[in-house]
Amino acid sequence: MDNEKAAAGVASTAGAPGTPGEPVRPLPPAAPAPDALAAVPGGGVAAALGFRAAGVHAGFRDDPERLDLALVVADEPCAAAAVFTRNVFCAAPVQVNREKLDEGGPGAPSYGTARAVVVNSGVANAATGERGREAARAMASITADAVGCPASEVLVASTGVIGVHLPLEPFRTGVPEAVATASRAGGAAAARAIMTTDTRPKECAVTFDGDDVGYPGARFTVGAMAKGSGMIMPDMATMIAVVTTDAPVLAADLAPALRAAADASFNRVTVDSDTSTNDSCFLLASGAAAPGAPPMAPGTPAFARLAQALDQVCVTLARAMAADGEGATRLITVTVRGAADPADAQAAARTVANSPLVKTAVYGHDANWGRVAAALGRSGAAFRQEDVAIDILGLPVCRGGLTVPFDEDEALRRFESPEVAITADLGAGSAEATVWTCDFSHDYVSINGDYRS
Amino acid sequence: MDNEKAAAGVASTAGAPGTPGEPVRPLPPAAPAPDALAAVPGGGVAAALGFRAAGVHAGFRDDPERLDLALVVADEPCAAAAVFTRNVFCAAPVQVNREKLDEGGPGAPSYGTARAVVVNSGVANAATGERGREAARAMASITADAVGCPASEVLVASTGVIGVHLPLEPFRTGVPEAVATASRAGGAAAARAIMTTDTRPKECAVTFDGDDVGYPGARFTVGAMAKGSGMIMPDMATMIAVVTTDAPVLAADLAPALRAAADASFNRVTVDSDTSTNDSCFLLASGAAAPGAPPMAPGTPAFARLAQALDQVCVTLARAMAADGEGATRLITVTVRGAADPADAQAAARTVANSPLVKTAVYGHDANWGRVAAALGRSGAAFRQEDVAIDILGLPVCRGGLTVPFDEDEALRRFESPEVAITADLGAGSAEATVWTCDFSHDYVSINGDYRS
Repeated sequence: MDNEKAAAGVASTAGAPGTPGEPVRPLPPAAPAPDALAAVPGGGVAAALGFRAAGVHAGFRDDPERLDLALVVADEPCAAAAVFTRNVFCAAPVQVNREKLDEGGPGAPSYGTARAVVVNSGVANAATGERGREAARAMASITADAVGCPASEVLVASTGVIGVHLPLEPFRTGVPEAVATASRAGGAAAARAIMTTDTRPKECAVTFDGDDVGYPGARFTVGAMAKGSGMIMPDMATMIAVVTTDAPVLAADLAPALRAAADASFNRVTVDSDTSTNDSCFLLASGAAAPGAPPMAPGTPAFARLAQALDQVCVTLARAMAADGEGATRLITVTVRGAADPADAQAAARTVANSPLVKTAVYGHDANWGRVAAALGRSGAAFRQEDVAIDILGLPVCRGGLTVPFDEDEALRRFESPEVAITADLGAGSAEATVWTCDFSHDYVSINGDYRS
Repeated sequence: MDNEKAAAGVASTAGAPGTPGEPVRPLPPAAPAPDALAAVPGGGVAAALGFRAAGVHAGFRDDPERLDLALVVADEPCAAAAVFTRNVFCAAPVQVNREKLDEGGPGAPSYGTARAVVVNSGVANAATGERGREAARAMASITADAVGCPASEVLVASTGVIGVHLPLEPFRTGVPEAVATASRAGGAAAARAIMTTDTRPKECAVTFDGDDVGYPGARFTVGAMAKGSGMIMPDMATMIAVVTTDAPVLAADLAPALRAAADASFNRVTVDSDTSTNDSCFLLASGAAAPGAPPMAPGTPAFARLAQALDQVCVTLARAMAADGEGATRLITVTVRGAADPADAQAAARTVANSPLVKTAVYGHDANWGRVAAALGRSGAAFRQEDVAIDILGLPVCRGGLTVPFDEDEALRRFESPEVAITADLGAGSAEATVWTCDFSHDYVSINGDYRS
């Protein structure tokens, strides 16, 4: 359809900056993960010392095979931090957690002391008013009784159908069973129990050595589980993450580290641009890997390494959520660099990632940079069209705001990859942002267009 | 799935404000069209006196049956105004028009003198650099020669594939043919010639009497054609509207009236939240319905009536565009009232209208107010969830932020209507906004996910 674009062979500039006929080099790749971190094979939310986890069928769902209650419990009270949805329609469990933690408020990180996190799937306890808040408080009390701790040390989360009242009976049988069966090996079951439209459980863990950061002989672990797909389908799904670490940290210091990690990971995922009523991310630190050691303080190498580990775990789970978006066939990584400032970089990357036209083009294996350009152009980011460069799957497709001929067969081959990278350089500065999303498929419409009953 | 929601029968509040058990009244409807305006059956862009129009096959498309060049030509030079896309990646014809009109700039209304508007479909002349601007200037020159006017009086627009250079040969044969065949009856052919993925041509006209607004004996007409669907598919589509009137108005006064009408109509349409590189809306005023009469001045009853007519024509076309969105099965009208200020009302309505979850729910005939609430909640508008009321298709589904039982069978019956009204009252003030969109279907994904070639 497009004689310039149809021209195959080695890509060359067409009216773009640089010497005509000279091969166009791809934009540089993103930074790799830090070497100091080691993945824990099969690790999850109970990989760190001092934590146990369980997933049971409590009865929120009809199918007895389906786990619907997850518990993460610490041996001792832990430093805790949490970040919650900014949605005005925030759900009852979010409101109740905010009562227990300090410095809470919409969007601000909260912190305090926690011994356990309990999560049910099937019913979101959202848009349920005062009766919903009472149910969330009861959920915490039942768990506190079974664990043997104050109710103020139990954090709660729910995910599932909106506008329905949360039954308490399943907690009365399910929580004691979860407490009894919780173990270091229970992370996988817990990760399964929080799934809704997720097609896969999501968990991971990394470790790092204390020797070179002032904690000789210690090895620290950060582990986590998360759920989320189709961010966010209010009657079925939400984003929930529980992160644990055995590093010693004060709660007040955990909070900003969690906020930073969430901003660089979960808040960079967009599947359909909606934000849930129930989104919650919890972080508990037991200190069990270095008993009696002083807390890692902000500004020290140990704290920086912990923050790296936290980022790594959250980014891994965030990418898994995007890849598991409803009906997704491809993970899409949108990177915008050369923006005038970080807000412009974020807005531009997010606008591209939210564009249904870009997402359907990826589904159709179409390296359609015009759709990327149109999204950048309406994002509000400041730039000049003649300064823009775009790569799709590492292939230069636009330079100087103009079409670059590329090998269409090579593009189709690269679209076989499970991950599609879209990279744009706005040529307006040095700020950069990455956002993850997935393609838009027929299955997305089927999953979300099917009548609920 | 939802025992509250499944309860059939007359709707009643459930924990919402008002007396429990009392029927919940629907939110009030929107204001009707003014009585003073009369529709012109079959009217379009050449309905106003002093204008002729034509649509021909010039050769931008291969199919000889498909019209691809539209011309609107006035008998005499007209006062003209235009509004253009705010996309940074604005196309060459937009840039060239801005050179000809005064007070132009991104988003600002431009005005001046024009004799003709020429539009081609098939090639957008976008992302084509200086060569594209030269082609747009040549398009105007060729038309000016055929019409017999200065090139500065010819406005241009293109729609179609992005990143491809515009061929000039089709203009050399097509424009003279269009000038030769242009007529008062040619509006319908012109409306066809600007279609891309549109499934229907879009035109309309209204008249109003001059007697009661200070122009005795005169009858004024405002007519228009537009194209647009799948706002906006950069490689195939864009939004273009040409509006004409035979009322006498100075160009400088036309510009703000056009901006206001566009803001209340075309800028309220969102099919997939993208904004095109080529969006353009032109308004020409011939004065031919009242030769020698003084121009209608802002602040007079005549000008107010003209503005009403302009709004009415633009809203009719905007709704037609939304209803013709790619793969659309339903027109969705989202009205948010009770917002703290107009910006909040707009943001809230637009966020609901852009939500793929809301759009797939409508496709699935699911009165899923939770998805509407979640979109309102993340829109940035200021409100409290316990103050929110939501109606879907005139059925109260949420009061006080809580579920209202409703008759699911009645809801399914109402979903048979071609238009689905979603109305929310935020209970936070008195500002209101309406946005039009369409549902998200399997066909949307097919149309946009199909590989271009």
